[in-house]
Parts: sequence; structure tokens; C-alpha cells
Amino acid sequence: MKILIINGVNLGLTGIRERKIYGDETLEEMNAKIRAFAEERGHEVDFFQSDIEGEICTEIGKASSRYDGVVINAGAYSHYSIAIRDALAALYIPAVEVHMSNLLSREPFRQTSVLSEVCKGTVFGFGMKGYLLALESFFL
Amino acid sequence: MKILIINGVNLGLTGIRERKIYGDETLEEMNAKIRAFAEERGHEVDFFQSDIEGEICTEIGKASSRYDGVVINAGAYSHYSIAIRDALAALYIPAVEVHMSNLLSREPFRQTSVLSEVCKGTVFGFGMKGYLLALESFFL
Amino acid sequence: MKILIINGVNLGLTGIRERKIYGDETLEEMNAKIRAFAEERGHEVDFFQSDIEGEICTEIGKASSRYDGVVINAGAYSHYSIAIRDALAALYIPAVEVHMSNLLSREPFRQTSVLSEVCKGTVFGFGMKGYLLALESFFL
Amino acid sequence: MKILIINGVNLGLTGIRERKIYGDETLEEMNAKIRAFAEERGHEVDFFQSDIEGEICTEIGKASSRYDGVVINAGAYSHYSIAIRDALAALYIPAVEVHMSNLLSREPFRQTSVLSEVCKGTVFGFGMKGYLLALESFFL
Amino acid sequence: MKILIINGVNLGLTGIRERKIYGDETLEEMNAKIRAFAEERGHEVDFFQSDIEGEICTEIGKASSRYDGVVINAGAYSHYSIAIRDALAALYIPAVEVHMSNLLSREPFRQTSVLSEVCKGTVFGFGMKGYLLALESFFL
Amino acid sequence: MKILIINGVNLGLTGIRERKIYGDETLEEMNAKIRAFAEERGHEVDFFQSDIEGEICTEIGKASSRYDGVVINAGAYSHYSIAIRDALAALYIPAVEVHMSNLLSREPFRQTSVLSEVCKGTVFGFGMKGYLLALESFFL
Amino acid sequence: MKILIINGVNLGLTGIRERKIYGDETLEEMNAKIRAFAEERGHEVDFFQSDIEGEICTEIGKASSRYDGVVINAGAYSHYSIAIRDALAALYIPAVEVHMSNLLSREPFRQTSVLSEVCKGTVFGFGMKGYLLALESFFL
Amino acid sequence: MKILIINGVNLGLTGIRERKIYGDETLEEMNAKIRAFAEERGHEVDFFQSDIEGEICTEIGKASSRYDGVVINAGAYSHYSIAIRDALAALYIPAVEVHMSNLLSREPFRQTSVLSEVCKGTVFGFGMKGYLLALESFFL
Amino acid sequence: MKILIINGVNLGLTGIRERKIYGDETLEEMNAKIRAFAEERGHEVDFFQSDIEGEICTEIGKASSRYDGVVINAGAYSHYSIAIRDALAALYIPAVEVHMSNLLSREPFRQTSVLSEVCKGTVFGFGMKGYLLALESFFL
Amino acid sequence: MKILIINGVNLGLTGIRERKIYGDETLEEMNAKIRAFAEERGHEVDFFQSDIEGEICTEIGKASSRYDGVVINAGAYSHYSIAIRDALAALYIPAVEVHMSNLLSREPFRQTSVLSEVCKGTVFGFGMKGYLLALESFFL
Amino acid sequence: MKILIINGVNLGLTGIRERKIYGDETLEEMNAKIRAFAEERGHEVDFFQSDIEGEICTEIGKASSRYDGVVINAGAYSHYSIAIRDALAALYIPAVEVHMSNLLSREPFRQTSVLSEVCKGTVFGFGMKGYLLALESFFL
Amino acid sequence: MKILIINGVNLGLTGIRERKIYGDETLEEMNAKIRAFAEERGHEVDFFQSDIEGEICTEIGKASSRYDGVVINAGAYSHYSIAIRDALAALYIPAVEVHMSNLLSREPFRQTSVLSEVCKGTVFGFGMKGYLLALESFFL
Repeated sequence: MKILIINGVNLGLTGIRERKIYGDETLEEMNAKIRAFAEERGHEVDFFQSDIEGEICTEIGKASSRYDGVVINAGAYSHYSIAIRDALAALYIPAVEVHMSNLLSREPFRQTSVLSEVCKGTVFGFGMKGYLLALESFFL
Repeated sequence: MKILIINGVNLGLTGIRERKIYGDETLEEMNAKIRAFAEERGHEVDFFQSDIEGEICTEIGKASSRYDGVVINAGAYSHYSIAIRDALAALYIPAVEVHMSNLLSREPFRQTSVLSEVCKGTVFGFGMKGYLLALESFFL
Repeated sequence: MKILIINGVNLGLTGIRERKIYGDETLEEMNAKIRAFAEERGHEVDFFQSDIEGEICTEIGKASSRYDGVVINAGAYSHYSIAIRDALAALYIPAVEVHMSNLLSREPFRQTSVLSEVCKGTVFGFGMKGYLLALESFFL
Repeated sequence: MKILIINGVNLGLTGIRERKIYGDETLEEMNAKIRAFAEERGHEVDFFQSDIEGEICTEIGKASSRYDGVVINAGAYSHYSIAIRDALAALYIPAVEVHMSNLLSREPFRQTSVLSEVCKGTVFGFGMKGYLLALESFFL
Repeated sequence: MKILIINGVNLGLTGIRERKIYGDETLEEMNAKIRAFAEERGHEVDFFQSDIEGEICTEIGKASSRYDGVVINAGAYSHYSIAIRDALAALYIPAVEVHMSNLLSREPFRQTSVLSEVCKGTVFGFGMKGYLLALESFFL
Repeated sequence: MKILIINGVNLGLTGIRERKIYGDETLEEMNAKIRAFAEERGHEVDFFQSDIEGEICTEIGKASSRYDGVVINAGAYSHYSIAIRDALAALYIPAVEVHMSNLLSREPFRQTSVLSEVCKGTVFGFGMKGYLLALESFFL
Repeated sequence: MKILIINGVNLGLTGIRERKIYGDETLEEMNAKIRAFAEERGHEVDFFQSDIEGEICTEIGKASSRYDGVVINAGAYSHYSIAIRDALAALYIPAVEVHMSNLLSREPFRQTSVLSEVCKGTVFGFGMKGYLLALESFFL
Repeated sequence: MKILIINGVNLGLTGIRERKIYGDETLEEMNAKIRAFAEERGHEVDFFQSDIEGEICTEIGKASSRYDGVVINAGAYSHYSIAIRDALAALYIPAVEVHMSNLLSREPFRQTSVLSEVCKGTVFGFGMKGYLLALESFFL
Repeated sequence: MKILIINGVNLGLTGIRERKIYGDETLEEMNAKIRAFAEERGHEVDFFQSDIEGEICTEIGKASSRYDGVVINAGAYSHYSIAIRDALAALYIPAVEVHMSNLLSREPFRQTSVLSEVCKGTVFGFGMKGYLLALESFFL
Repeated sequence: MKILIINGVNLGLTGIRERKIYGDETLEEMNAKIRAFAEERGHEVDFFQSDIEGEICTEIGKASSRYDGVVINAGAYSHYSIAIRDALAALYIPAVEVHMSNLLSREPFRQTSVLSEVCKGTVFGFGMKGYLLALESFFL
Repeated sequence: MKILIINGVNLGLTGIRERKIYGDETLEEMNAKIRAFAEERGHEVDFFQSDIEGEICTEIGKASSRYDGVVINAGAYSHYSIAIRDALAALYIPAVEVHMSNLLSREPFRQTSVLSEVCKGTVFGFGMKGYLLALESFFL
Repeated sequence: MKILIINGVNLGLTGIRERKIYGDETLEEMNAKIRAFAEERGHEVDFFQSDIEGEICTEIGKASSRYDGVVINAGAYSHYSIAIRDALAALYIPAVEVHMSNLLSREPFRQTSVLSEVCKGTVFGFGMKGYLLALESFFL
């Protein structure tokens, strides 16, 4: 299987910003571990990160024909981007939503994801390990 | 008259995504018909499409001095982009809002457009034909 | 094609009341222009106006077997008449909603139409010209 | 006992409109069965139908002195007619509310009846049979 | 001065319904006293009563050219009739709203009048005497 | 036909608590009358009463294979038990909801039943007679 | 009759502040006219003005034994002073609420008066004349 | 590691009720697979199922001293049981919440879990596989 | 006097769970002190604890004929159990509500008790001492 | 211990106003009993009453250095005075809130106290006895 | 220029109460620095502090003719005093609102100021320095 | 000190769009004055303007290591960009929010800034002068 892993806004700062919430591994270090996890199990992953909502939509728009699934952590856009939601709804392949923190236990404005409704499933609260569980949901 | 037709986020996927709602003509095919319709009536149209909210604002910011009117289908941004709304409010020429589906008969979060309030008029629910009606509102 | 054009409550006062919003053409003058527009294009229109919600429902109830489409501007009833909505939902022919002003840019209580959800499409904000655009949506 | 059965807006279309929800018996056929049911049990019924809210109020206003009870299905007016509610509240005889569909399992705006609060009881969801149950509530 | 006094839905039942709230004078008795009050002060009044929302709108539509002012108690329609509100807004003469009970001290759904916003003033809670005070507001 | 009649929380106190609302017949006396009513008409009824939400769910879970229908008055659980709602939704036989008082005319928090949406119909406000009407809805 | 007329916060500025809304008569001038009006009709009035919520309460607390009625315009306190409301509720004589502007046609936060519910009646929108009408409601 | 897996109300009906949503494996079959999954990875699991909210609380109350973690699918109680939430909050070991369907894409009343806020993480939408992912979150 | 003291869900964990909020005395230790307090003053107390909502209702249902009053701390059920509320409303003896923490200063969902409305009084925020004050309210 | 007892707006009318709710003892009579109660137990109390919100704040501002605790019944100010709340929050000694009636069982606007959140505890519903229980909470 | 600086309720406690939020300078020390700042720049300031809402209104009512501007920190009254708002709206000179803490980042009930809407500008969050910035807004 | 001044969406149009609200100085002219103001006081400023939300986030992400503070006017993004909010929250240096108009006195949807909560302070309503005051908050 070939899975696209999308990281949205401010996730390039992981390991630098608010470490108590997001840990101190950088995105590059996380991605290396995620790739290793997938390859050990005989699968392939690609990574895409952008701070720009529209670029994420464009990228999702091209994913149906290239991947077997999408894992997405859209960062703050998850709370209000109907645009990304619509892009995900247009996919012909399943998407799984990941958040490192448990959205549902944070500030009220963070307790909804407008993306969840168009994703197959959601994995929240397990830090970097959430990406691995999301991949497992494709591999198991 | 010279009219600028702006298509927003995910509209580049028209003809590919959710065809039951949006039909199976691609944006290019639609644009060709729209241009033909305008030219038959002796008017001119330009097209702009972007998935990026800020680029749409920038484009609108330049329209006042170049066009006689704007027809805009901002896609999902219509539901929350105060930024595009402010850009439209700053225009010195009239804008008309178009949506292919009838927003008012869809999910609650799609039943408002923050753009309508600053547009002269709105045309919803007639599919690709809505662009023609919007143009007619300038030509009649 | 034969289209029924329904005007609801207070629309008999058009050209008299609040001219800044609704213009100073009377309903009769408007209807004459609308008829001319339709006939030029080889179609036929009938007009019905009533201030009484229930009479509008009764009229809609008889339209399916006599017309190819309905154009309706229910006036203030648009904001709360589930009765008219139900009558429209029972039609076997398409209905298009028209408002002379752009409902979506007026007072909050005017920003919803309970009728939109059961209409094929909506045309708001183009004054008397909106009736012509609504007809065009059938003729184009 | 002598019971008045009132049917409100659009109920004249029963058997014609949205048959999946309301069945395909016409109002006349239903009324014949209801009359038979009452007469078998030694009681009398009268029928009144109007699409006009105010006419229903006027009719209710005259019922106290002529009947032992009222059975009312006000159709869409049930959701917002404080006028009919006030007319019912002024009755000196009990009223029972009937709806053919189960209001409480439909769209949110149909889930309230402003009439229920001034009726003795409510019978929702049993199609045409609901009128019979409402009568039974007087006869048992 | 010549003033039109409009009574809306169910007010024909005054003196019969809910006497604890509305007193036991009939509408005819009240009207006689109101006329006497006006004539004593050298003014003229006309009365109009209807249970039908649309008829009230039609009547208001004709008042501008015939009267110096309108006194209106629209009954239950006061709580939701945008149609009557629009008819009043189109008047070129002042309107004063009367309610016999003090709306603001009753059930929540009775605590708003959608008509107040377009009336010059409101007089609530003084029973039949409220009509006299409303007239005084024109005569003083 | 064989019908299961379920009474929920506090209904064991019927005839003892708040008699002005619920009458002074005990549950046993009511059940005897209900059984007689059914048997006269050639049908069979079973009774189940529990104060415990989960026990009611378990009982409903077993009903599909044993009965032709369920009549349920879940008492206060009707207002918030998604658990009982889910158990009813899982039934393969129809359920009818009964309340002795007219829920829709009581305190706001009692004006919704989360169960109604998954029941075929509802009968509210006829006291003990409501159970008979609910049975009639199966027998007629 | 002896009536106490209470003016609340900022009403000492009448004739000075926002004259388009409140007119340009000062409170003293208004009071002189009000006294004249009452005396002509053989009645007596006293005036009390304070900007301090608690002082108004204290004054109301002493009114029952000294007056036949209270006319109150509490100014902005009308919108939130449960304290004044409670003081009025404790009166053994009737109170009538006056506002010079028509509260119900102003900003949303001004559209409720927490005092209305405990007053016999309300007179809004007639400027200074409202005090006269309020007195008339006692004298007629 | 030793993990307690708690299934709440109506989950005993899995494989029987609403199979389109919950699949057609019974709870016993699911549990067998879950145990196998854990044992393969060298860990131990215990299962507890109850339809009774209070029994679930009691069981959670005893878990801190016996297990290394809790996996909980409380069924419909997830949406309103502050009681179970409080029991989870009192745990000294981590809890992970599982739902077979993606709560966040269902009816509004199912879109919140009052338990999420006190769980380490949540895994929604992967059917029976969700229990395996929840276990992986402990084992990885 | 003989008073029944009811402790609801999770209160069996007192002294174990969240000690910063609830202190570290166990329920047994607390009960011993409460009994001593009552007996010193010549009164008698009984204790009942259950995690099961329905069992609490059943117990309350039997209390009227056996006790002079009820002191109840229903734990989390206080926030949503209309069932317990109804059971308390059916009592012929007074009930007093106790919470160890000050509900009104905690999370929003804890700031309401649906039980308070049917209790004579409430004592919140004094820890274990609250039970003594509740008893004093009977004894003083 | 030395405790300051503060009574807010309209409490000077106790024994005079709404006796069914507040009893017919005057504030002076109540205070005498409260003082006796405290002195019997070897403690001291001071009393402060004002109808003026700001004076209550000023008094609270001086209490930290003079008393061991504050008992406050702010009357209607309890529902909206963030000012008094802030004054209480600034205290270095504990405050206990008392209301004679059970706020939580009265009109919705009386069901919140903005003061509770900054008080140690609350005692509602026991009439004059509530002051004694509040004192006991310091003395026990 | 001559500026009036108004400090509202509880601000006399500055330097004493909640020092983590408001710092430990007293109001007198702050005022001295503010006066020095103004005088250095060749301007004059007066100070007014009161805990009483109505006194603040009265003071504002006299400011138009004596000052060139007002700087106001109304303390807790900012969140609900329509009275002070109305007094400010009646000013003929500009007012600037100051808060030492950043209202917009505190508890929800503190996140609105009903005064802002009638002030020229707002300066929040800079502690005592905010008064200086507010003065600068007049002097620059 | 070295301060980064960020201007968001549509601010490039300043001096062109809605001049009644934003003045007729262009952004370049404003920036020149701001730079002069800073340099006169011995400090340094850099400017960044973008219409694209994600680019603003990226820029903020790099600011911590290069500047002593950030002054931000995010334009319309201020009302809904959780993305920018998160970027600001991740800063290790203080940020101050500026708006030229007084947000709190404009349309409801403009009355909140989701950024305020993570800024040290806010300066609204002083036009271009607001940037100077924001700088002063760093320099004083």
C-alpha cells in the first residue's frame, strides 16, 4: 500500500512550539520513524506539509489516483476549513484523521473537527504514535 | 462589458468530484461555454481560479480598475472567508455570487454565505447555467 | 413552456411601498414586461397574486397538472410559511424562488427563506430583473 | 357524542402529495372511513378543511357551542400558528391533536407543535388510523 | 383626525374567551365606547376586524390614503407575522400597537411583537383602556 | 398478536405519586384493565417494569424474537436515555410510545422524548387510556 | 390620586444628550408640564430622579404607603436591574413603565425590560407624552 | 501488560442490531479475536460488559489496582454519563476510548462523548479493528 | 427525627478518588461521624449508597413512609437524572441536597443540579461538613 | 471568630415584601436571632445592609483585615453583579453565600448567582435559618 | 489638553487585590506616575474614582463641558453597565477605554465590554502602562 | 529593540478601500511614518504583509529568534484564523494586536478576535496611530 501523510499549518514547528503538548521531536524525526514503521511492514509512505490551506486542497485533489489512502493532521485548519473538508469528501480513497493531542479534551473551539465527518476514522491523543496507529488501520 | 469570473477552492476539480451534485463537465468545458455565451452577446469575460483564499483576495483587489463586474463562486470559502468578503466590499464595481448547487437546501453549515451580504445579487442551484444567469444580470 | 408566476403578500403594493428597496414600477407594469420577455422567447406565463397564505397554497396545489414550472416570490411569507413550503414540496414540476432585494444582505430575520430548501434554485437581489432571470433558468 | 374534525393546510392534497409519507388515500376516502368508524360506535362527526389559517380560527371559535370535542390536524400551521393555538385555548370542549406522520421523528422544524400545549392529548405517526384513535380517546 | 382601528385574529371572541385575561366586554361593546371617546374629543374612528392575516395586510395597504393614523391589535399574529409588519412598514401614516394584556409579562413566545419595531409606539397591559390611550397619543 | 408493555422509572409509584397528574389507580390495577382490554379483542400482553435504565435496554434487546410489538412508557428516561433509544432502534418489531400526561404541555425539559424518533407513533396525554389507544394502534 | 414619577439613570441629562432620540426639553421643563397635566385633572404628582440603582430601590420600597401608583422610567437600568424589578414586585400599588423611545425598535440589548414583567402596563415610544398617557391610565 | 476492556449498553447486541453500522460479528467473536491479538503480542486482556451505567462505574472503580490500562466503549452512555466520566477521572491508570462507528460523522447528539475529556486518547470509526488499535496504543 | 442519607454514584470511592476535591476520609469514616453528630442531638440516621440510578429511585420511592426527611448527594446523577428528580418530587417529606464541592464554582456541566428544583434547600461546598449542616437544617 | 454578615438590595424590606417567599420577620428581628445564635456559641457578628451595589463592594474591600469570614446575601445583585463578585474574589478570608429562598427552584434568571463561584460554599432555601447554617459552617 | 481619568469599582483596591493580575502599585502611586507623564508632555489630568455605578454616570454627565477627553477603566461595570454606556454615548468629547489586564484573554464573562462600542478606542492588557498609552492617543 | 510589524489580508489596499473607515494613507506611507517613529526613539522595525493566511503563519514561526516583539494586524483573519492564533501562541516573544477601527463597535462578526487571547495586549480604534501606540507599549 502507498499512503500519503499530510501535515497542515504550524506542524513544521513541531518539536519547537508548545512542547508540553506536542513533544520535542521535530517533524523530520517523526517522519523518519513513520517511514521506518511503514517499510518494516512492507508499505510505502509519502509526506506533504504546508501552512497554506489552498495548497493542502490542491494536493488532496491529486491524491486519489496516486495513493491507497490518506492520513491527515491538518492542524488548526481542522477546526474550520470547509475547503479541506470538501477536498477530502471528493477523494475516492479513504482518509484517516490524526491529532497528536486529544482534541476532545482541549479548549471548546478545538473540540470539533470539520474534517472528521468525511474521514473513515479518527485517532486523537497519542502524540506521534497516532500516525503509526492511523497507518495500522490501513495495514491490519 | 468586461466581466471577471472567479472560481475558488476545489472548483478545479469540477467534473471529477461529487458529480451527482456538480455535474460531469470539467471547469475548462464550462468556461468555454461561458465565454461563447458572453461573446454571442457582445461581451468579454476573463477567468481566474485559485484554491488559495489570499490569492483570491489579491485578485479581487485588482479588479475595480480592469472590469465592469465580477461573478464569483468562491466554493467552500463562501461559508467563512471574511477576508474575501472584505475584498469584495472594497470593490467599486458590482459583484454577483453564483453557486452551482442550491446552498440553501444543503447541510446547515453550507446554508450561509458570508459573501452574499456584499454582493448585488445571488444565483444558486442552476448548475453550470448559474454562471450564464449571473452574466445575464449584467447584460439584460 | 407554460410558467406560473406567483407573487405573495404585499407585492400588490410594489411601486408604492418602500421604493428605495423595491423600485417604483407597479406590479402590473412589471407583469407586462415579464409577459413580453416570455412571449418574445416563445413561452407563456400566467400570474397569481394573493396576500393570503392559504390561497397561495391552494393555487400551488393545482399547478402541477397545468404548468411546466413555477416562479415564486412569496414576500414576507418566505421567512416563516412552512405551509407554502409544504405546498411547493408537493409539486411535480420545478419551482424557482425570486426576491427583488438580496435577502441575504438585509435584517437577520429576512436572511432565511424556508422555501429555498424545496426550490430548484434561487435568484435574489436583481430587482424586477430577477423574474426574467428565473424565467431564463427554464428557457436556456 | 358529536365531534368536529378539522384538517388544515395542504391536507386537501392528501393521497396526491408525498405519498410515501401520507399514503395514497384521498381526504374524501379517509373521511368516509372515519365517519363509518364513528357511526358504528353510535357517534357523529363533522368535517372542516381549509388552507387558510384565519378561517380555521373562525371555525374553532364557533365549535364550543356545537360539539363535544374537536380533533385537529392543522398541517404545517401546527408548527407556528399561535393564532390557532389561541383559538383552541379559548375552547370550552377538549381538543385532540392528530398528525399522520410522527412529527417527532422528522425535520427539526417539524418536531414542535405549538398546538400541543393547549390540547388534551396528541396522537402522532399512525397515518389515517390516527383519526380513529383520536376518536376512540373520546369514545372509550 | 380619522383613525383606523384594526383588530386581528380571535379578537372577535373578546368577552367570550379567557375572560380572566381579556375581560367580559364584547368587541362590539368595546368599539362603541371607543367611538364615543373619539367623538367626544372631535375625532372619527373606523373599525376593521379579521381573523385572516392576508386580509389585514390588504386593509393596511389601503389605509395610507384614507386615515391619519392606525391603531392595531393584531392578536396572535403580532408574534410572528412579518407580513403584517411589512404592510405596516409601508404605511405613510403613524401606527400605534395595542395589546390588552401586558405581553411582556406572559409566556416567553408572547414576549415579542414583530410589529413593534415598525410602530411609533406601544401601549400594553391596560385592557380595553389601551385603545383609548392609543387614541390619546394621537389627540394630545 | 402478542405485545410487550414496558413501564420505566418511577412508574411503580403510579397511584401513589403526584396523583393530580397521574391519577390514583396503581400500576397493578392499570395492568389488569389493559390485559382485559387486549384479551377481549383476542390478543395477549406481557408487562415489564423496572427503575433501572440498563435493565430496560436488556429487556428490549430480547423482545424482537418474542413479540409482535412493544408499547413503552419509559418515564423520565424518555427525556435523555439514548441507551433506551438505541435499544428500540435495534428492534425488528414496531414500538409505540405512551405517556399518561401530555409531555408537550409540561416543563420544557419534559417536552422532548429522545425515544419518539425511533418509535412508529406516540400517544400522549390520555392518562391510563393511552395504553389502550396504543394497543388499538396494533389491533385496528 | 397621588402618583410618584421616578426617573432613573441619565434622565437628568434629558434635553442635553442625544436630542434626536430624546427631544430637547429638559427634565425640569417636562416635569412642569406633567404636573400641570395632573393638576388640571385634579390629581397630584411627586418626582424622584436618581442615577443610583440602589437609591431607586430604596425609594420604591417606601412608596406603597404614600402613593396610589408609580410611573417609572428607569433608563438603562430597565434592561438589567433585577434589583429594581424586585423592588417593584414588592409594591402594594400598581406601577406603569414608560420609555420615551420605542425600546422595541432599538438595539437588541435595549429590546427587553426586566421591569415590564412586574408592571401593570407599559407605554413606549411617545416621547415626553408617554408620561401623560401613563398618568391617563390611572385617571381614565 | 494487563488491560481491561469494557463494553457498555447494547453492545451485547453487536452482530445482531443495525449491522450496516456495527458489522455482523457477535461480541463473543470479537472478544476472541481481541484476546488472540493481545496474546500474540505477549499481553493479557479481561472483558466486562454491562447494560447498567452504575455497574460500569463500580467496575471502573476497582480497575486501578488490577490493570495497566482500560479500553472503554460505553455505547450510548458515552453521550451523557457524567457518572462514568467521573469514574474514569478517578482512575490512576490511562483509559482509551473506542467507538466502532465514527461518532463525529453521525447524528448531532452522537457527536460528543463526555468521556473523551478524561481519556488519554480516542479511536473512532474503524469497526472492531478499533479495539486492536486501542490496544496497540498501549503496546507500541 | 429519623433521616435517610443517600449517597449516589462514585461516592463509594470517597477518600480514594480526586482527594484534592473530596478529601481523604472514606465514606465509612464520614458516615460514622455523621451518625455521631445526629445521635448527640437525639436523632437517628440511616445510610444508603448505590452507583445505580434506578436503585436510588426505588429507595426514594419507599422513603416517605419511613423517614422524616432525606439528605441526598446523588453525585454525577445530580446533573442529568430527571428520574431521581421525579422520585424526589414524589416524596411527602422534605429533601435537602448536599454536595461536598461547590458545584457552582466548577466546570459548566457541573453547575446545574436538576434535583435542586424539587429540594427544600441546598448546601454546597463545605466538604463532609455539608452533611452535618443539612442535618442541622432539620434539627434547628 | 468575628463574622461580617452583609445583606444587599431590598433586604431591608424583609418581613414586608413578598412574605410567602421571605417570611414575615423583619431584618432587625432576624439579626437579633442571628446575633444570639453566634454569641451562645462564643462568637461575634457584625451586620451591614445596603441597597447600593458600590457600597457593598467598598464594605467588602475593608473586611479582610477586620473579620474571620463573611456571610453574604446580596439579594438581586447576586444574579448579575460582577462588581460584588470581584470584591469577594479579592478577600483574604472565606465568604459563604446565603439565600432565604432556594434560588435553584425559582425563575430561570434567578437560578444563577455570579457570586457562588468565588464563595467557599452556598446555603440556599432554608429561610432565615440559612444564616445560622452559614455561621455553623464557620463554627463547626 | 485636559483629560479626565475615571476609575470604577474595586479599582481603589489596586495594589492590594489579586496582585498577580493587577500588579502591586496602589492607585495613588499609579495616579502620581500618570500625572507626571501628562505634565511632562504639557497636558493636565484629573482623577475620579467611585465604586458606585450611578456616581460614575453623574460624573461623566458633567465632563463634556470641562474636559477634552475621558479615559475610563470602569472595572467590572464594563461588562454590564448599559447605564455607564449611555452616559458615555451622551458625551461630546472622545472617550478611550483602558483595562489593565487583557479582557479578551480572560473568563468568557469578562470578554465583552458594553462600553467599547461607544468609545473611540480601547487599550487592553498593558497593566498600568495602558493609562499612559490611552493618554498618548490624545497627545500624539 | 527590533520589532516585526505584520499586516494581513487586504491591508495592502489601505488608502484605497473603504476610506471612511481606514483613512486615505497608503500602507507604504503608513509604514514610513511608523519607521520614523521607531527610529526617533532608537529602535528598529521590519514590515511583512501578505494576503495568505499560511504565509503569515510561516513568517510568525520564524520571528522568535529574530525579533524582540511582534505587532500584528491580521485584518479579517483576526476573526477566524485559529492557524495564526496557534502560530502566535508558539512565539517566545510578546505580540501586540492592532486594529485601525474599533472592532468592538462594528458588525457582530467583527467583534471577536481569536488572536487577542494569545496576545499580550490589544490597541483598537486609533487608526494608523494604533501602530505607534503598540510600539510605545514596547518602548515605554
